[in-house]
Amino acid sequence: MNIGASLSILLVLSTVHAFQYNQLAQYVDEHQEEYVEALRDWVAVESDSSNVLRRPELHRMMEMVAQKLQQMGGAVESVDVGDQELPDRQTLALPKVVTARFGSDPNKHTLCVYGHVDVQPAKLEDGWATEPFNLTEINGNLYGRGASDNKAPVLAWMHAVEAYQKLSMALPVNVKFIIEGMEETGSNGLEAMILAQKDTFFSDVDYIVVSDCGWLSRRPAITYGTRGNCYFLAEVHGPKQDLHSGVYGGTVIEPMIDLIGILDTLISPSGKILIPGIQEAVAPLSDDEWRMYQDIEFDVDDYKNKIGVSRLMYSNKVDLLAHKWRYPTVSIHGIEGAFSDPGTKTVIPSKVCAKFSIRQVPNMDPTVVEKKVSDHLHSVFSKRQSPNTLKVSMVIGAKPMDSYFIGRKPNKFFSVDPDFIREGGTIPISRTFQDVTGKSIIMLPIGGFDDGLHSQNEKMSRFDLSDHFLPSYVYSC
Amino acid sequence: MNIGASLSILLVLSTVHAFQYNQLAQYVDEHQEEYVEALRDWVAVESDSSNVLRRPELHRMMEMVAQKLQQMGGAVESVDVGDQELPDRQTLALPKVVTARFGSDPNKHTLCVYGHVDVQPAKLEDGWATEPFNLTEINGNLYGRGASDNKAPVLAWMHAVEAYQKLSMALPVNVKFIIEGMEETGSNGLEAMILAQKDTFFSDVDYIVVSDCGWLSRRPAITYGTRGNCYFLAEVHGPKQDLHSGVYGGTVIEPMIDLIGILDTLISPSGKILIPGIQEAVAPLSDDEWRMYQDIEFDVDDYKNKIGVSRLMYSNKVDLLAHKWRYPTVSIHGIEGAFSDPGTKTVIPSKVCAKFSIRQVPNMDPTVVEKKVSDHLHSVFSKRQSPNTLKVSMVIGAKPMDSYFIGRKPNKFFSVDPDFIREGGTIPISRTFQDVTGKSIIMLPIGGFDDGLHSQNEKMSRFDLSDHFLPSYVYSC
Repeated sequence: MNIGASLSILLVLSTVHAFQYNQLAQYVDEHQEEYVEALRDWVAVESDSSNVLRRPELHRMMEMVAQKLQQMGGAVESVDVGDQELPDRQTLALPKVVTARFGSDPNKHTLCVYGHVDVQPAKLEDGWATEPFNLTEINGNLYGRGASDNKAPVLAWMHAVEAYQKLSMALPVNVKFIIEGMEETGSNGLEAMILAQKDTFFSDVDYIVVSDCGWLSRRPAITYGTRGNCYFLAEVHGPKQDLHSGVYGGTVIEPMIDLIGILDTLISPSGKILIPGIQEAVAPLSDDEWRMYQDIEFDVDDYKNKIGVSRLMYSNKVDLLAHKWRYPTVSIHGIEGAFSDPGTKTVIPSKVCAKFSIRQVPNMDPTVVEKKVSDHLHSVFSKRQSPNTLKVSMVIGAKPMDSYFIGRKPNKFFSVDPDFIREGGTIPISRTFQDVTGKSIIMLPIGGFDDGLHSQNEKMSRFDLSDHFLPSYVYSC
Repeated sequence: MNIGASLSILLVLSTVHAFQYNQLAQYVDEHQEEYVEALRDWVAVESDSSNVLRRPELHRMMEMVAQKLQQMGGAVESVDVGDQELPDRQTLALPKVVTARFGSDPNKHTLCVYGHVDVQPAKLEDGWATEPFNLTEINGNLYGRGASDNKAPVLAWMHAVEAYQKLSMALPVNVKFIIEGMEETGSNGLEAMILAQKDTFFSDVDYIVVSDCGWLSRRPAITYGTRGNCYFLAEVHGPKQDLHSGVYGGTVIEPMIDLIGILDTLISPSGKILIPGIQEAVAPLSDDEWRMYQDIEFDVDDYKNKIGVSRLMYSNKVDLLAHKWRYPTVSIHGIEGAFSDPGTKTVIPSKVCAKFSIRQVPNMDPTVVEKKVSDHLHSVFSKRQSPNTLKVSMVIGAKPMDSYFIGRKPNKFFSVDPDFIREGGTIPISRTFQDVTGKSIIMLPIGGFDDGLHSQNEKMSRFDLSDHFLPSYVYSC
């Protein structure tokens, strides 16, 4: 498994010696099977943070994280971040946040590694080829839920520190860890914890590293920015309960038909956002950006084939990457409250709630987006003259983010020039780290571009990339 | 519980004596608690025919039906109607169809009572005020899944026969029963069984009674026709698996957005069907129909309040009833394959399947409707120029039906004039009975107009309506 990236960044922030790196790389190669076994143990824990029934598993996962860091001799704390309030008003203990420290030399920089060990839901019957919680190797790929998002990257950073320790090399930087278990459902409790420890745990931190992102190709990559995300609920309420469509159909104005009518005004078939004032706020693509995108190693056909579609939204590389990273888009995820099971229920659902999100890019402001979306939906809804009621709410409003590397592309970071990329996904907690601590965020992807995050058959590739990571240039922070 | 209706029809088909009726009515009154307990036992069985995991419960339900009829001394058969093929190609035994016979006097008419004891799905968390499979009485209403649809009506017929038996009165007609367990999912296996027994079980049957329908108000009603139903699946297939909307959003044409775009072309906000050629086929409303609708006891405001909306699709009685019974409508039930759970998953679903249905009314032909809908959807889909693929299939194609009473409104059937009504729902098996056996279908509603079929808080009312049912006129068949 690739932990070369983790080694690289530790070296990059200090004076580097090729000899040291080679020793470390050899150690990593020799211990690869142990790393795979450690990942297998972690993947076996169904630490799904969205399913309250799996909460005991999630607590167990956090204990395993603390234990691993303790075994490595770190100064470990399991921080209680309180309870979660469930929709039915019951409360449930949040998983503890685990912090650790390795070294406290005031003459060294301090790097804080953020990661999460909770996962998205996964069931074999969703279309997985293998049991999602049983790490399974096929052709050098390690399949399992959470393998890439984000268990292997978290382990990679721990193993990087461990390699230094085992070789009795001094760590080139002080290393801290902050590992949470609620990332997939919005990092509940973490922001308050960061605020509370702003002047303690975070006071000596210089950089916060996030590896919850991916490369774009087989060429190493450095991420200089991410998209944000505004996640909306649009609920249409009608009859006080579900109705039989034979008995009542034709006499009531159906909430589902109203909802579909307004959802159909969000985005055109060719991908143009139809909500007034959204597209207008977006920063124009600069010539420099265009050139940078043009230089990136990216195979459009390969991307298209991996996704399995006959045509993408854009056919040329620059348009495609720009719309993946730095243009907003609307995705409609689904509808809660309507009939969604197999079979043929003849129901008029009384209350339906659509879930859609708009990815945020530079110059967009979630507060403005919230108002534009709400105004637009209420306007098209009111034209329908429906007796039903519409409620629009934005439940996530995450801004886009710039990382430490924006405008500072290192010329020679690895043995090959890395791609300098953005990330289409959102890592809201990075933004929180930046806003609360004022520290620089280093986004260093470890997962591959085709790892299937949040999808069926998520995987982490085993292939050894240490060659790519031989740092030949010390980037001066 | 109202079993007066069942008594009435037995009497109506023979020479009636008020004395006999009064004796029967008194017996029924005195045994009401037993009837409620019998219903409680039946409702406690989660005989959901759409859920393969509940199949053992459904088999048990059919055994309880057979046992009840055996205890009453009927000649009972449990007919094996074969296996059901599941989408994954596995097979599952269908619930047996139970038939029974009481009396075989060649000088009497023979009445065959059809009913079903399977139910729609129900879960407390869907919004039920009480446990759906625990019959619970509140203000004279008995709440439970299947209470009205169709367990209590089936029991009412059995108890009507039993009342004659217990009072040692000769049944005025020979009575047969045919009770199935797959009605809610399309009466799988029953049509073949009816065809097979056409010249045996059905050879001496004069009338087939269906009580799987409801009254319109507190005035008794006779149903002279039902709507049919064409149930469609519209599936859009895109990427080969679900994608993360942050990582891929903006680069792929999302199946969900295509699907919403085409669903939005089915029906206008004011209820006009937009599919070319559908509305055009409908029989015009005759002056006679208009007058009959005008005479029906029906409180629009009460209907509106029961449903719990501020405005209905039509505000006058005739328009409203006409659109409830004899105009087509489109209902969109839901979407399978998209994100439908609580929470905020950021997924681009790869394959989504909408479920919608069009109610069929006189002069509409399901075969024609199937073609019009498929042509229309493919036409609007092709205008989107999407790389995704669309598949449209009609999985239910049930014609509208006329009952025995069409054009034969009895002047005095009960102590009050009954309403002469249609039914908006579909009872496809009635049509099959009519087509295969050539017998007359008598539709005699027993359930109330506000029983919440297929909805949360389904109920059967306990109130005794025997007064209304004192037949003062013998209708000559």
